Amino acid sequence: MLHVKGGTIVTAERTFRADILCDDNGRIATIAPEIDTPTGCEIVDAHGLLVMPGGIDPHTHMEMPFMGSIASDDFYTGTAAGLAGGTTSIIDFVIPDSGSSLLEAWKAWRIKAEKAAADYSFHVAVTHWDDQVHQDMATLVNECGVNSFKHFMAYKNALMVDDDVLLHSIRRAGELGALCTVHAENGDAVAYMQARLLAEGRTGPDAHPASRPPTVEGEAAQRVIALAGLLDAPVYIVHVSTAEAAHAIADARMRGQRVYGEVLPQHLVFDESVYSSPDWLTAARYVMSPPFRPRHHQHALWAGLTSGQLQTTATDHCCFCAGQKENGRTNFTHIPNGTPGIEDRMSILWHHGVTTGRLSPQEFVAITSTNTARIFNMLPRKGCIVEGADADLVLWDAQGTRTISARTHHQNVDYNIYEGMTVTGVARRTISAGRVVWDEGDLRATRGAGRYIERPALPRR
Amino acid sequence: MLHVKGGTIVTAERTFRADILCDDNGRIATIAPEIDTPTGCEIVDAHGLLVMPGGIDPHTHMEMPFMGSIASDDFYTGTAAGLAGGTTSIIDFVIPDSGSSLLEAWKAWRIKAEKAAADYSFHVAVTHWDDQVHQDMATLVNECGVNSFKHFMAYKNALMVDDDVLLHSIRRAGELGALCTVHAENGDAVAYMQARLLAEGRTGPDAHPASRPPTVEGEAAQRVIALAGLLDAPVYIVHVSTAEAAHAIADARMRGQRVYGEVLPQHLVFDESVYSSPDWLTAARYVMSPPFRPRHHQHALWAGLTSGQLQTTATDHCCFCAGQKENGRTNFTHIPNGTPGIEDRMSILWHHGVTTGRLSPQEFVAITSTNTARIFNMLPRKGCIVEGADADLVLWDAQGTRTISARTHHQNVDYNIYEGMTVTGVARRTISAGRVVWDEGDLRATRGAGRYIERPALPRR
Amino acid sequence: MLHVKGGTIVTAERTFRADILCDDNGRIATIAPEIDTPTGCEIVDAHGLLVMPGGIDPHTHMEMPFMGSIASDDFYTGTAAGLAGGTTSIIDFVIPDSGSSLLEAWKAWRIKAEKAAADYSFHVAVTHWDDQVHQDMATLVNECGVNSFKHFMAYKNALMVDDDVLLHSIRRAGELGALCTVHAENGDAVAYMQARLLAEGRTGPDAHPASRPPTVEGEAAQRVIALAGLLDAPVYIVHVSTAEAAHAIADARMRGQRVYGEVLPQHLVFDESVYSSPDWLTAARYVMSPPFRPRHHQHALWAGLTSGQLQTTATDHCCFCAGQKENGRTNFTHIPNGTPGIEDRMSILWHHGVTTGRLSPQEFVAITSTNTARIFNMLPRKGCIVEGADADLVLWDAQGTRTISARTHHQNVDYNIYEGMTVTGVARRTISAGRVVWDEGDLRATRGAGRYIERPALPRR
Amino acid sequence: MLHVKGGTIVTAERTFRADILCDDNGRIATIAPEIDTPTGCEIVDAHGLLVMPGGIDPHTHMEMPFMGSIASDDFYTGTAAGLAGGTTSIIDFVIPDSGSSLLEAWKAWRIKAEKAAADYSFHVAVTHWDDQVHQDMATLVNECGVNSFKHFMAYKNALMVDDDVLLHSIRRAGELGALCTVHAENGDAVAYMQARLLAEGRTGPDAHPASRPPTVEGEAAQRVIALAGLLDAPVYIVHVSTAEAAHAIADARMRGQRVYGEVLPQHLVFDESVYSSPDWLTAARYVMSPPFRPRHHQHALWAGLTSGQLQTTATDHCCFCAGQKENGRTNFTHIPNGTPGIEDRMSILWHHGVTTGRLSPQEFVAITSTNTARIFNMLPRKGCIVEGADADLVLWDAQGTRTISARTHHQNVDYNIYEGMTVTGVARRTISAGRVVWDEGDLRATRGAGRYIERPALPRR
Repeated sequence: MLHVKGGTIVTAERTFRADILCDDNGRIATIAPEIDTPTGCEIVDAHGLLVMPGGIDPHTHMEMPFMGSIASDDFYTGTAAGLAGGTTSIIDFVIPDSGSSLLEAWKAWRIKAEKAAADYSFHVAVTHWDDQVHQDMATLVNECGVNSFKHFMAYKNALMVDDDVLLHSIRRAGELGALCTVHAENGDAVAYMQARLLAEGRTGPDAHPASRPPTVEGEAAQRVIALAGLLDAPVYIVHVSTAEAAHAIADARMRGQRVYGEVLPQHLVFDESVYSSPDWLTAARYVMSPPFRPRHHQHALWAGLTSGQLQTTATDHCCFCAGQKENGRTNFTHIPNGTPGIEDRMSILWHHGVTTGRLSPQEFVAITSTNTARIFNMLPRKGCIVEGADADLVLWDAQGTRTISARTHHQNVDYNIYEGMTVTGVARRTISAGRVVWDEGDLRATRGAGRYIERPALPRR
Repeated sequence: MLHVKGGTIVTAERTFRADILCDDNGRIATIAPEIDTPTGCEIVDAHGLLVMPGGIDPHTHMEMPFMGSIASDDFYTGTAAGLAGGTTSIIDFVIPDSGSSLLEAWKAWRIKAEKAAADYSFHVAVTHWDDQVHQDMATLVNECGVNSFKHFMAYKNALMVDDDVLLHSIRRAGELGALCTVHAENGDAVAYMQARLLAEGRTGPDAHPASRPPTVEGEAAQRVIALAGLLDAPVYIVHVSTAEAAHAIADARMRGQRVYGEVLPQHLVFDESVYSSPDWLTAARYVMSPPFRPRHHQHALWAGLTSGQLQTTATDHCCFCAGQKENGRTNFTHIPNGTPGIEDRMSILWHHGVTTGRLSPQEFVAITSTNTARIFNMLPRKGCIVEGADADLVLWDAQGTRTISARTHHQNVDYNIYEGMTVTGVARRTISAGRVVWDEGDLRATRGAGRYIERPALPRR
Repeated sequence: MLHVKGGTIVTAERTFRADILCDDNGRIATIAPEIDTPTGCEIVDAHGLLVMPGGIDPHTHMEMPFMGSIASDDFYTGTAAGLAGGTTSIIDFVIPDSGSSLLEAWKAWRIKAEKAAADYSFHVAVTHWDDQVHQDMATLVNECGVNSFKHFMAYKNALMVDDDVLLHSIRRAGELGALCTVHAENGDAVAYMQARLLAEGRTGPDAHPASRPPTVEGEAAQRVIALAGLLDAPVYIVHVSTAEAAHAIADARMRGQRVYGEVLPQHLVFDESVYSSPDWLTAARYVMSPPFRPRHHQHALWAGLTSGQLQTTATDHCCFCAGQKENGRTNFTHIPNGTPGIEDRMSILWHHGVTTGRLSPQEFVAITSTNTARIFNMLPRKGCIVEGADADLVLWDAQGTRTISARTHHQNVDYNIYEGMTVTGVARRTISAGRVVWDEGDLRATRGAGRYIERPALPRR
Repeated sequence: MLHVKGGTIVTAERTFRADILCDDNGRIATIAPEIDTPTGCEIVDAHGLLVMPGGIDPHTHMEMPFMGSIASDDFYTGTAAGLAGGTTSIIDFVIPDSGSSLLEAWKAWRIKAEKAAADYSFHVAVTHWDDQVHQDMATLVNECGVNSFKHFMAYKNALMVDDDVLLHSIRRAGELGALCTVHAENGDAVAYMQARLLAEGRTGPDAHPASRPPTVEGEAAQRVIALAGLLDAPVYIVHVSTAEAAHAIADARMRGQRVYGEVLPQHLVFDESVYSSPDWLTAARYVMSPPFRPRHHQHALWAGLTSGQLQTTATDHCCFCAGQKENGRTNFTHIPNGTPGIEDRMSILWHHGVTTGRLSPQEFVAITSTNTARIFNMLPRKGCIVEGADADLVLWDAQGTRTISARTHHQNVDYNIYEGMTVTGVARRTISAGRVVWDEGDLRATRGAGRYIERPALPRR
């Protein structure tokens, strides 16, 4: 048992003084202004701290095989780093090879993830369409706790699906009570632009953003929203990075469609100038898709979050070390796409969102956990502080500062995109399933302590 | 003490099985799956019912002097009717004559409202600008529990203020931590159109919508949003009735502005055809401003609510009986503007919103109470179900039906705009401050039981 | 020689009194207020008539093989019918089978068109991509007088091209100084919806609009505009029928893109109710793609024309008789898509555009000929009234009326979609290449009199 | 008589080789590929030059009394400078004091303008409303050749009119066949911001743009468009300087409204950084309203011109010398608002518009003369090259360059906002009413040679 004592609870709804008692099953037993500490119960001092739901990162790629490499953070190191930053749950991705079984892939990913130090769940990617996929989707929803499927409109000749697959999958998901998530970039256009740039001799990282300009994302977002609208089904667009996509989502919602959008903190703070570094590796480390954008897009993303038209934040955490990035030294299209960040999401958002006055603390909770829990049907187990919920908490020092660095972070990767940035807003302690796993710099992550989170089919409105 | 037993609690966040114990101070003492009934405690059976926060109606006009009449529902009869429909709080309007003291008007309205049967609060209207207004606003915010001010852009030569007043008031409110609310219609344009229509011999109720077409509202909404944007201040637009205004709000929010919009259920279900009735009185009874609109506007309002770009629902409850409406028999501009509805808001929204699949039950709670409580800083006292909150609850029969009629309603007015409409979703019991005040058709409202709700200045983000 | 005497000339720029003298080469020799009739010169009385450039219809399908049939109007009958309605030039389509040679197809179409009674030109369709297409495009532009290519985003497994083909073709056209035109409907979505509707037992014509709702067009328009924008190339969207596509075009233009849009008069006057006829054949006769739409789309199309965001009007003239339409009696997807209309375009636009006050006579000229001539680089040979231009003129009776009927029309097809409509605005006489070919009901079309119009590569701005 | 020989004529419609013969009445007598020079006729060599309609500047303020000064260019010097730059006509403004007679003011301005060297016309400002204004408008339209009226939404307590005046004037103009033009900035907001900035001690020119941010223009544009829409009347917005106003116009046009927008070249090339000059006078010289804007607005203005949603270009030519600008040395609100530019408009637009590929030469003609002539009903007398039109021509050297400087310009003012800018595109010769008035640097302007241009009421569509 654990007695979180003296803190100020912040939920998506309100801020109030209360203690929390966590039981031995890792759940919140009692929330009350003053609690007498039961005998033998560990006390966690929360005076002067905000007690918030542990962060949920709905977009990570631990140990993902991608572009000839495997992402360097595995389910253990990655989730442990998350705990150090206040994130207590992830939703990762099962990505079957095109043509292979969704269910088998899900089983394989379940095994890989057993080493996780924090709770985890899976979106399952649909990378082709046939009767087996149709059937596997039902099995996954009805028997495996999967209520979301992922689709790539980019990565031609690899993960990309065409509109026909999208239509079949979105409709099937709708029947089953599952939500389709989509990486929205026009893969044909990207491939075309890549070939053209390479033909022009542009092989470096600065060609990366040129190969997938904002229009490429805006178009794909418009398209999948149109397809989902035809089927009267909801859709969730991952890593929205452009004003174009943000407005496509907002416009659709104002037509009555149920469309959701996810923002990565890195898109809120970096712009395309990162690709202009004279040092190849420095620039290559920022290669991810969608790329960083001209600065005005950031305004649209922030406005999307404050208006509620974009609902969630994630990291697309996908780590590749120097040696891996080197694969693309002579051809930017071979640079493994991905940036780290699970450990820093909460601090970056607090620093740039709350301390600047853009977001209230309640809104911070909404976009770091509650909205994600609601959209992916994990609430009230995750994403809120109520009796009976999982005791996943972060004790937040709203005035504390720290300087981010690869030298001190816990992510298993040799750089940090936020290197040297000093942020206000620090996870002092993290509690996962009722256990203190991060305590003022002491990471007490346990390999295998993480549990698989079954997410039931979405309720019908 | 009161034990609400066996119900399913619905909040803006989640739905869960729990009992509620209300203490003798009218507050929620305990929420738990199973509670043993304390000795002597009254039991309220909630089996099969949804237990939701009592509705908050942030836009009513009880016993308002307007256009030569006084609205027929007074603070007692009007709030009592609200209780019969599940609404347990109102925010009414203090409307000083142009040039007179805000503070004195507020005092006068406090006295009028002492007869209220349910809790109440006040927006205070700013109808002119001078140093006294500047000073009174501070007194009202700092000493009187007022955190919102109202402005009319319509009603030329009466309540209307110009852009200069709006700028001064919005800025002053911003300094004080108060929110400006606005009736957005271009008063010059309305007066011009009224004169022109009368000159053309159009004197009947069908000239009413012609005198204030959608553009008149859209323009004013755009304008006040622009003014608030200049001052970097929030603004709340009452009774949004058009696609134009809804989109103006959504667009501003997507530029990062804090703009809120309120919807009346009557605008969601009626269109301008109500003014075409061959019977003068039937048509005149629907005369309110803004008027009912061509049907496609309803789609925009619903989408605004489901997307979260419009946040609250209200009634603009303002009752005028046949004899009062008759004032405008020969000149539609003399028909007292106003429609009743406090008793039916919750049922209309459940029927047309939840049973149609547009809204989830949680979203219903959000737009009938929680969002209003948050925007006007009444949370967590109102608008949520947590320990310590006021025990204002409605026990909702999601499948129950009733047929609305002036013959059976409790509003002190001789008609009901929803006459004959059978709705699914009925308030079976209403609890106000821990007392059962509506019990299966038995209205136990107590004159003077309502308390004034002090609303503190808004928190800075 | 021909002396057009006493008329009022209307061009896209101005309206003025002048005579016109046409020389023996079929060109305009002189324009002057008063001309002395040369000896032996035929006089055409234009008193009381407007003398306007003959109409150009940039979208016809004469004797096109399509969906197992061949369109019933051939190049002779179709162009002759055009002359009867005041249209003196067409741009038809060369449509090679997927995989076959553009150049060979163009040659085949040239032969088919030799029978034409009026001047003609060709867009050439790109239905696949390979090096031969790349090379043929250059030949067609540089040697064959072709400056526009057509692309179908619909008709899956037939004419449809994917985004990759679009990108290659748009870029290639840009290099060559040619313009890409696009049929914008998402073919994957149409095929999906068709299959679903058939599976639901919906086999009749009313399933046709359901299989290609407005979104399907709006999405494709957005997409091709995005692709063209990536390549900084212009694009022309044929038969814009929806508010969605019209706004996509207008928005792109307001971002600085060169995008053009074409409107068919039938989309301005018919709505989707045409598919509800209880008589199968009546409904089937209106089956064309894109289909007729809910009425509010018409407002957007008119506004597009009056604002100049949509520039041209065409007919998509494609005739199928009853026996041909019968192919789809048990399956709406087998109904040959197409409606007649070349003979009535000018009258329909005058009646619904000019007599209603939507368009000035100058604007009528702009959208029926001048804009088309400018966009497709036929000006000043076509589309204007200047010395040296082809003497293609229509003598218009602005107040005259006629009642449209298949019994009296000259199109080689057994119905008229405007059957029974009485229109104001009638072509009294038509002059083609300096010869009177339509004279108060007397059609003097000559088989083979039409000439192929070479359209040189577009000028660089 | 004058024979313009060897040139290439460019009109809004087309480009062609032709000579022009001007008669002794100052009109174009003949246009033909080759003309034999009549005996005694002066030859103007146009080989290698483009012959275009002389520019029309629809927005100038010659010798205007404003803000305690009188603009330093009078009707003679100002129109002469225009001739040197290829502009042969202006529309200036009659601005009666509020409360005084429109007709008397028009008469007074007629007298002031008699000294003009080029043709001129007048918009008449409506600065208040009463029966006399109502009557004077009719007299001006019916008897005085005025078909346009001007309204200021800014300049509170001076020229500003409220919405009621706008409604009355727009409607009255509509009845009379006249067009309302509007300076769209919210005067209440400007006055409020000015007072606030001064109170904060911001007295310098950099406070000028801060006192009238883009929103102030966007709001006013939206508003007047809404008012005109209520009355189903056209409206013309002068000096559109923001994306907000440009989009308001484009959106209204896509709803079917007739709205026109005018762009000043200075807004296309300068941004708000001009106000940051450390030298007070340098900054003060750029003080005009609306002010220069952040750079992204330029993109919207260019797109407005290329898409045809903004139709005309003007200068708002209004000259104040150093001594006059000094009036505002300690208070930016006293700096006389205005910048010179009539001499440079054509070159600036050619250089930044045509040589960059944004505009074709035909589009250049459209936005420098033809569209203005059409909108203000001066066509075909002005704005086109046809027989019978006024012989107002500019012989343009498309490749020639010149460097702009106050040392060499002909404007009667001691600075040039384009100082030091080298532009491609030069007026080699200007012909006004058939006389060469500018010949390779030799200005032959004649005081009083300008004629008043009567503009008849607009045709009904």
